[in-house]
Amino acid sequence: MDTYALVKNKAVAAKQAAGQMALLSTTIKNQGLLQMAQALRAQSEIILTANARDMEQAVAKGMKSSMLDRLKLTPERIEGMAVGLEQVANLPDPVGVVVDGKRLPNGLNITKVKVPLGVIGIIYEARPNVTADAAGLCLKSGNAVLLKGGSEALHSNAAIAGVLARAAEAAGLPVGAIQFIDTTDRQAVDALIHLNGLVDVVIPRGGAGLIKAVVMHATVPVIETGAGVCHTYVDASADVEMASRIAYNAKVQRPSVCNAMETLLVHQDIADKFLPLMLNRFLAAGVEIRGDERVQAYSQQVVPATEEDWSTEYGDLRLSVKVVASLEEAMEHIARYSTGHSECIVTEDYSQAQKFQLGINAAAVYVNASTRFTDGNEFGFGAEIGISTQKLHARGPMALPELTTTKYLINGSGQVRG
Amino acid sequence: MDTYALVKNKAVAAKQAAGQMALLSTTIKNQGLLQMAQALRAQSEIILTANARDMEQAVAKGMKSSMLDRLKLTPERIEGMAVGLEQVANLPDPVGVVVDGKRLPNGLNITKVKVPLGVIGIIYEARPNVTADAAGLCLKSGNAVLLKGGSEALHSNAAIAGVLARAAEAAGLPVGAIQFIDTTDRQAVDALIHLNGLVDVVIPRGGAGLIKAVVMHATVPVIETGAGVCHTYVDASADVEMASRIAYNAKVQRPSVCNAMETLLVHQDIADKFLPLMLNRFLAAGVEIRGDERVQAYSQQVVPATEEDWSTEYGDLRLSVKVVASLEEAMEHIARYSTGHSECIVTEDYSQAQKFQLGINAAAVYVNASTRFTDGNEFGFGAEIGISTQKLHARGPMALPELTTTKYLINGSGQVRG
Repeated sequence: MDTYALVKNKAVAAKQAAGQMALLSTTIKNQGLLQMAQALRAQSEIILTANARDMEQAVAKGMKSSMLDRLKLTPERIEGMAVGLEQVANLPDPVGVVVDGKRLPNGLNITKVKVPLGVIGIIYEARPNVTADAAGLCLKSGNAVLLKGGSEALHSNAAIAGVLARAAEAAGLPVGAIQFIDTTDRQAVDALIHLNGLVDVVIPRGGAGLIKAVVMHATVPVIETGAGVCHTYVDASADVEMASRIAYNAKVQRPSVCNAMETLLVHQDIADKFLPLMLNRFLAAGVEIRGDERVQAYSQQVVPATEEDWSTEYGDLRLSVKVVASLEEAMEHIARYSTGHSECIVTEDYSQAQKFQLGINAAAVYVNASTRFTDGNEFGFGAEIGISTQKLHARGPMALPELTTTKYLINGSGQVRG
Repeated sequence: MDTYALVKNKAVAAKQAAGQMALLSTTIKNQGLLQMAQALRAQSEIILTANARDMEQAVAKGMKSSMLDRLKLTPERIEGMAVGLEQVANLPDPVGVVVDGKRLPNGLNITKVKVPLGVIGIIYEARPNVTADAAGLCLKSGNAVLLKGGSEALHSNAAIAGVLARAAEAAGLPVGAIQFIDTTDRQAVDALIHLNGLVDVVIPRGGAGLIKAVVMHATVPVIETGAGVCHTYVDASADVEMASRIAYNAKVQRPSVCNAMETLLVHQDIADKFLPLMLNRFLAAGVEIRGDERVQAYSQQVVPATEEDWSTEYGDLRLSVKVVASLEEAMEHIARYSTGHSECIVTEDYSQAQKFQLGINAAAVYVNASTRFTDGNEFGFGAEIGISTQKLHARGPMALPELTTTKYLINGSGQVRG
């Protein structure tokens, strides 16, 4: 069978399952999730064996160690996936939640209620745990899921998806609710993103290249996630110690993630007091500083920043630093280079804080806290399928409610329009 | 200047205006809308003169009379646009509405607040009133608007947009918040739907061909609207008089609109009692009936329905009719042919009503009322930019709140992630 037909067949099966998923009780869905968790534990050997094959091939291909670490599964990581499914089982079911409602003057009763999206396509890269995480969230929210993982994790993902699908079916979930696209053919992604009428939304999770390719070529609806060129602006009035703590945390605590800081903007009136110590602290932590001329003046170790640096999501221990003349210059810089993920001002000035929060166009706008908090778990959502950096449907951390849509139920007694 | 550059320049100007629009007070926005309404009245001669040019060209090109009627402006229709703007001024401002919020254990305060989308592109066909309606809704919700109307209404739309833009600016709205793309070059639509980073969403309003073309080719986010193959299912337990009233209203009251019925499904156990009278009533009203074999048996005037009929949005006095053996068969038919707009069951049976509302996948699912009620004004929203038939972001009638997104404001006191 060709790849297009393979993907389409799986989407058709997923759509059929989605119709039944939408009608399932929370109890049945939760039982499915708990049995999926148990199955991961009970069948961890199958998964570890499959993962060993992927690891062997990856090593043979010369995959770099940070990628190998993402690919590798251990009993602890499998336990982590199982616990994740159990946590999702414990979260409230978004399906059936009444969002709004009223009685119209003509006696019609209107209720706006949350319902599943239908078939959710997830396109992801190296980490095999996404297979379990995404399946759990999609099923709990009453959807069927169509999983397309990275080629390098094919055996691991297929093993996990197989274990989960069998457990889900045994627990009474509809056959076909978890579909794994078991091919390394690159055409599979292209097929998936063109299945209008079968796939209700595609969520790409991975690097900027993958996300851009999906956004630019998909004809099915897409939710864009994850690109994060995040800024921290240290205002003239900032508490220097607090600013140092926040900036250090935002850059150093986990530089590989999308909510880490990539650019530090510093008001010129506080630069002398703030930057020398801050730069030393960063340099001591192994952070490479790329600065404008005024930043370079504070340390010989600062590399000149290029135009490209300001728009780059480093994802590592590199940082762009710029001195600005005003809040307005900081906000203009952010408007120009931000990906609309998370932006922070450190300030003791009420009006500056207000202007920043009102004027910055991003999913999360902070005053006096690290951008690292932009995360479904940190926000108290209990889970996260991704962080939307677009404006339609969902913006910021996406959890179970964001995997639903709504429908209007209208109950009448024979009303017609006059 | 080439068309692509023309459209891009307007989008750049709109984006700049959008940044200022987002910060405007409700008072200023309302003053803008009221002055726009007054300007339409005061300058109606300019608009009528421009419309006369369009009408003249349309007549010369042999445009059919129903289209000519859509294109034509009269003092009454201009007054209607002005009143529409005043009504929008009276609606609550969605911007700044706090959707959700809480304090986290670490002391961070999170507030989820409605903010404008930014730049909204509206692509529409013959009716010039859309220019004023769309501009009013987009501005009230704090957005800038990029208008691309049908070529046949170019002079009318340009005149209306010009009057509105001058009035808006005079009232203190940012220059450039209303952008009209004054070209008939078909490339303009193509340019508009590929301006990622400048255009936040495109809403096509018009025929199925326009909407499909935009959905299939756009790289910017799209909200799909308006396609309506709506069904009414008359259950075995239906009150025959009520079913007749609802079906007649759904088809005949205004057949050209998207919430009108295109297919009537009748349970076989009620067909003998219901169909002969119903068919006669439709035939007397000039409705052409396309039926399956069992429907044909009731009247010689019934034309055999083809496979294509079941998926056609007639938009006129044609109707497909089918006899089904069960609720399940009706729901399967709807699942196969529905565009997910509005579906109705007429029944006195509680369980059948429940199954239908739970199982039907559409924006609006009715029990015992005409599908004609799916409309922003009928639902009490006070206005409507379109009816979304997709699942992301908004589903069903879209009013002011649907023209916003959200952002998270996080206020801390130096919190960092551990």
